Amino acid sequence: MSKKPSLHTILSPRLLDIYDISNSIVVIIDVFRATSTIATALYNGASRIIPVDTVDKCIQLGKTTGGITAGERDGKVIEGLAHGNSPAEYPRSFIEGKTLVLTTTNGTKLLHMALQNGAAEIITGSFPNLDAVCNYLSKEQKNVFLGCSAWKDRFNLEDALFAGAVIESIKDHFTIHCDSSLMAEEMYLFHKNNMASFIRKTTHWHRLAQYGLEKDLEYCVTPNVANILPIYHNGDLIVKQDV
Amino acid sequence: MSKKPSLHTILSPRLLDIYDISNSIVVIIDVFRATSTIATALYNGASRIIPVDTVDKCIQLGKTTGGITAGERDGKVIEGLAHGNSPAEYPRSFIEGKTLVLTTTNGTKLLHMALQNGAAEIITGSFPNLDAVCNYLSKEQKNVFLGCSAWKDRFNLEDALFAGAVIESIKDHFTIHCDSSLMAEEMYLFHKNNMASFIRKTTHWHRLAQYGLEKDLEYCVTPNVANILPIYHNGDLIVKQDV
Repeated sequence: MSKKPSLHTILSPRLLDIYDISNSIVVIIDVFRATSTIATALYNGASRIIPVDTVDKCIQLGKTTGGITAGERDGKVIEGLAHGNSPAEYPRSFIEGKTLVLTTTNGTKLLHMALQNGAAEIITGSFPNLDAVCNYLSKEQKNVFLGCSAWKDRFNLEDALFAGAVIESIKDHFTIHCDSSLMAEEMYLFHKNNMASFIRKTTHWHRLAQYGLEKDLEYCVTPNVANILPIYHNGDLIVKQDV
Repeated sequence: MSKKPSLHTILSPRLLDIYDISNSIVVIIDVFRATSTIATALYNGASRIIPVDTVDKCIQLGKTTGGITAGERDGKVIEGLAHGNSPAEYPRSFIEGKTLVLTTTNGTKLLHMALQNGAAEIITGSFPNLDAVCNYLSKEQKNVFLGCSAWKDRFNLEDALFAGAVIESIKDHFTIHCDSSLMAEEMYLFHKNNMASFIRKTTHWHRLAQYGLEKDLEYCVTPNVANILPIYHNGDLIVKQDV
C-alpha cells in the first residue's frame, strides 16, 4: 500500500514557519477577497497577475509592464492605484488579455512568505475555483498545506471554511493529523448549507460590509463560478493548463 | 448604557503579541494537561504551584523551596524531575500543604509569554475548574483574552473547546468581535454532548494515548471536578479566595 501524502491547514501567516513546506504544494487562501479576485480575473482572460507585497512595487511594475495596478489596504482602494480588490471590477470586457499587478493586505503577503519558506509549488484558492483546486490536489499526490491568509495575522473564518471545503472533497487521498484541518472541515460541514447567512457573523464581513461590499462577499463564497487553477510561475500567477 | 469589556481568543502562543493584553485578564488554557493538573493540585490542597519554563529552573527551585519537581516534555516525564504532568499524581493525600514546581511543554511557556507581554492578571483554566473561571470573569468586568497553549505553537482542539465552553457561559457580559471566539464557541456547542468521543479524534489524544493516558485525558475534559481559581501572584499560582 503506498503511503498517502500529508495535508495540513495553517490558520495564520504567523504559523507558517512552524511547518516544513519544502517539497509541498501551498494553497494560498484569501477568500475576502484576494484569491477570489485572482481566480475571477484569470477566468475572465487576464493574461497574468503579478502579486506584489508593497504599494510602491505595484506602482513601479504597473509602469514597466503596462499592467493595471490594483489593490487594497484595510479593505479600501489605495491612493495611486487604478483599481481595487473586488472581483466585480474584472469582467472579461475589461480584463481579457491584460496584466494585473495586485497588492492586498493579507493574501499577497502570505504568498511571498510561502515563496521565501521554500514551497515547491504555489497555487491560489477560493470558493469561485474550489473544484479546480480539489481536482489538482487529488491528482498531484504531493504533500499539501492549505494556507489561510487571515486578517493581519488574526484567524478568520472564511479562509478556514474554504480549507474545510477542500478537505471534505479530497481527504480520502491524504493522511491528515492536524487539528486545524479537523476544525476547518467541521466548520464547513456545519455551515455549507447556510454559508451566505453564516458569513454575516464573521468579523471580516462587518469590516467590509461597511464599505458596501455585501455583494462582493456573497460572490466570494459561491463555488465554481470562476473554475480555473491559478499557479505561481516566475513571478506571475497564470492559469495552469491541462488540469 | 455602560460599555461591555471585550473578549478575544488566542489560538496559539505565536499569535499572542498581535494583541494588546495590558489591562486585561489572560486565561492560560492547556487542557491536556498542565492547567488541568494545576487546578487539581490546588483543589487538593497544594499550597502553591511555581510554573517555570525550563527544566533547569525546575530542578533548582525544587532544591531551594523544598517543592516537588514535576513536568513533561512531549508528553513524557522528564529525567531529573520527581513527577509528571498528570492530575492523577496529585491526590490530597500526597499534595496537601506542599509546593509543586511545574514545567510543561506548552502551558507554562504561554504563561511566561503573557507575563512578559504585560497581562494585568493571569489565571489558569481547564474543564475541571470551568465554573470558577466563568464566575470570576463575569464578575470582574475586565477585558479578557482566552489564551490557548496549543501544541508547539500548533492550534489544538481541546484548548479551543474549553475557550468555547467559557464563551458560551459568559458571552452576554462581553463584546466579542473575534472569529477565533466564534469558532471556539461553535465547536464547543457542536461537541459538548459527545466530548469524550470527540477528543479521541484530536491529534493530542493520539500523541498522549500511546503513553496510556486515556483516563487522564477523559478527566481533563470533565467539568468542575476541581473547581477553584488558580491566580498568578508573585511567581506562584495560588487559589484565589473569595470568588
